[in-house]
Amino acid sequence: MRVLAADTGSHDGSTVELKGWIHRIRDLGGVCFVMLRDRSGMVQLVFETAPDITLESVVSVTGSVRKNEKAQGGFEVQVSSIEVLSRAAADLPIQVNGDPDKLGIEAILDNRAISLRNPKIRSIFHLQSDILGYFSEYMRSRDFTEIKSSKLIGSGSEGGTGLFEVEYFDRKVYLAQSPQLYKQTMVASGMERVFEIGAAYRAEKHDTPRHLNEYVSLDIEMGFIESDQDLMDLETEILSHVFDRVRRENGDILEQWGADLPSPEAMKNIPRISHDEAKSILTERLGKRIFELNPEGERELCDWALEKHGVELVFVHSFPRKKRPFYTYPDGMKTMSFDLLFRGLEITSGGRRINEYDMLVENIKRFGLEPESLAGYLEVFKFGAPPHGGFAIGLERLTQKILGLFSIKEASLFPRDRKRVTP
Amino acid sequence: MRVLAADTGSHDGSTVELKGWIHRIRDLGGVCFVMLRDRSGMVQLVFETAPDITLESVVSVTGSVRKNEKAQGGFEVQVSSIEVLSRAAADLPIQVNGDPDKLGIEAILDNRAISLRNPKIRSIFHLQSDILGYFSEYMRSRDFTEIKSSKLIGSGSEGGTGLFEVEYFDRKVYLAQSPQLYKQTMVASGMERVFEIGAAYRAEKHDTPRHLNEYVSLDIEMGFIESDQDLMDLETEILSHVFDRVRRENGDILEQWGADLPSPEAMKNIPRISHDEAKSILTERLGKRIFELNPEGERELCDWALEKHGVELVFVHSFPRKKRPFYTYPDGMKTMSFDLLFRGLEITSGGRRINEYDMLVENIKRFGLEPESLAGYLEVFKFGAPPHGGFAIGLERLTQKILGLFSIKEASLFPRDRKRVTP
Repeated sequence: MRVLAADTGSHDGSTVELKGWIHRIRDLGGVCFVMLRDRSGMVQLVFETAPDITLESVVSVTGSVRKNEKAQGGFEVQVSSIEVLSRAAADLPIQVNGDPDKLGIEAILDNRAISLRNPKIRSIFHLQSDILGYFSEYMRSRDFTEIKSSKLIGSGSEGGTGLFEVEYFDRKVYLAQSPQLYKQTMVASGMERVFEIGAAYRAEKHDTPRHLNEYVSLDIEMGFIESDQDLMDLETEILSHVFDRVRRENGDILEQWGADLPSPEAMKNIPRISHDEAKSILTERLGKRIFELNPEGERELCDWALEKHGVELVFVHSFPRKKRPFYTYPDGMKTMSFDLLFRGLEITSGGRRINEYDMLVENIKRFGLEPESLAGYLEVFKFGAPPHGGFAIGLERLTQKILGLFSIKEASLFPRDRKRVTP
Repeated sequence: MRVLAADTGSHDGSTVELKGWIHRIRDLGGVCFVMLRDRSGMVQLVFETAPDITLESVVSVTGSVRKNEKAQGGFEVQVSSIEVLSRAAADLPIQVNGDPDKLGIEAILDNRAISLRNPKIRSIFHLQSDILGYFSEYMRSRDFTEIKSSKLIGSGSEGGTGLFEVEYFDRKVYLAQSPQLYKQTMVASGMERVFEIGAAYRAEKHDTPRHLNEYVSLDIEMGFIESDQDLMDLETEILSHVFDRVRRENGDILEQWGADLPSPEAMKNIPRISHDEAKSILTERLGKRIFELNPEGERELCDWALEKHGVELVFVHSFPRKKRPFYTYPDGMKTMSFDLLFRGLEITSGGRRINEYDMLVENIKRFGLEPESLAGYLEVFKFGAPPHGGFAIGLERLTQKILGLFSIKEASLFPRDRKRVTP
């Protein structure tokens, strides 16, 4: 019966079987110490003579557990037999057991299958897995239903730019930029509250530390809201839940990355400022007239929020109509829409949507689009749709900002950018 | 403060606010009964005179709750005021409040945004949402990590047929048929146990009640297995958990569809037969020589399992080498692989994978593929990979068979087939 590395200590004095990867070999002549790595962590193996084995080989060993204060976890295993399950070639393309900060990001991504063996690099994705779980559990607790919508769409929802084209039998379709129309359809179907975890695609030529061409979008849509303030309330609650769970369950990963999270008290103080107020704050702080929120402005606003409100998050709302998609609910020349900035990066865009048929038709024309091309979408509103709105959180951006990663590509298992389509 | 329809009874004698859709109107002259539908269910509203309102309009009403044994749920609301939040046009393309069995599947899918308002049709997707939750919670409880892999791949994993082509900047990529290579990479990275919930694409021209060109795949991969029997054990445990939760939490949906599920006892008796045994059983039962498992054979095998073992599931294992992908672990001229059939339909394909580099290179050549084109994949095995295997469950097929739906397209919110790319 296999014992995990992390559980070795509870078998003190017994003979156990362990399975895993050879992480490090330290041959001192009369004794050889080997670190064995498995999904739970690491344990020190002790051999009398160095085994014939290479780094990263997969082995099964049997041995007896004994205390050793100097060993990681306080225990080690004196090995009596070893079986090699899979022998690794000696020419590892990158070092697995070193400090990942010494590997450049290109080396990490080019050798993804090997770099993910480094426990610190892999921990990003253990955290991401847990974030998905914390997010889902919270949405379900609030009576949201999980949906899975098609990622192959007949036409773009936002005017046709930035779409990847797919050969679909004898016609063209496109990869969805967001499940926008589908999540609205499901709210209007009577589900009222829906969420989706799915891929989103942007055919944009950016190559920056904040852009991916394929990313995981945590999408939310909710009926019977009064205004976009309800949505900011909801997002605050979601993130407070996620941060709280990460703090309690993933403290080891935060520590490994030297990361911390806004406290529950700080989360209650996230400021909500209008787009105009944001520009004024930036104009004052940067000493120059600011006309829109660029990355520099987003960083500066988060600095402002931290100084004035003690939290590295800020909601910016009331964006001008021309800056938001056609389906955004207008409020004079502004809109009931918002972004959430976290540690200098926009991690969410959202807002109330137009749920009135005539207003929607008018706005579609105003944006230079043709109501006929959106007939299927319009049908949702022709037959009764409640006031509603929603938003989306980028999973990789959230992960990046929680851990303080330099590039968003570090937070994607197999990132896609303009040049990278493998591995 | 809004009260949900299902909670009306706990406010007997009080004045409440309700919000939802007008499901049915029955005007008897001196009194008008209106069924209001929201995400929780329905409640009867009573008006002294018929309100000026159309079916499917969204309203907010205020009124007092009182007992009425004849009303659904045992309570009704005498309305004192009504506000129309969104007025529905009168020309509904299909009837929402009727029996969905009277609508053909084409009408249901062509008018998806409206047909999903029918509570019975929508219940399919409330169940599907819960299945996703039950599946994930079980995988996490067994120490599996959730991954999100890219759906854009540089080349096909299984020889290049059946792939949709994507224009990716100045090159071509393909939509992934499965996360096969990625989940194996993550097992070998040291995660050991991974699952993924993601879209899978098959560019096959089938148009049958059992095929979709885009579906949701529940993918599992696990390291340190002894044989494919471990995988059949795991799948039995997963499905037992899901069925148990559905039985306890979704009894109302099962009842609505006249559906039931294999009992916990029956799940312990799922037979495991080899591909050769399956052919013998079919030859005997059908009175003709059977050479492969076609849909008729799959149905017959489930009938056999029900008669002989009291359960409508059967594992078929030991498929011949030429019938399984190149990465399947061989066992003489057979393979360590299996399908799971449920109520006449294959819902899973899986098996042990080759984890030995030399064997994998040899098998790639044997299948007429070029090791060079799979160099990135091979690297995973060159540097130590434990014995492992996995399988995938089709979410829509599982939903279809749980509820007894005629077509798999009924179990996909926005299905994609050869002709259908909208809505």
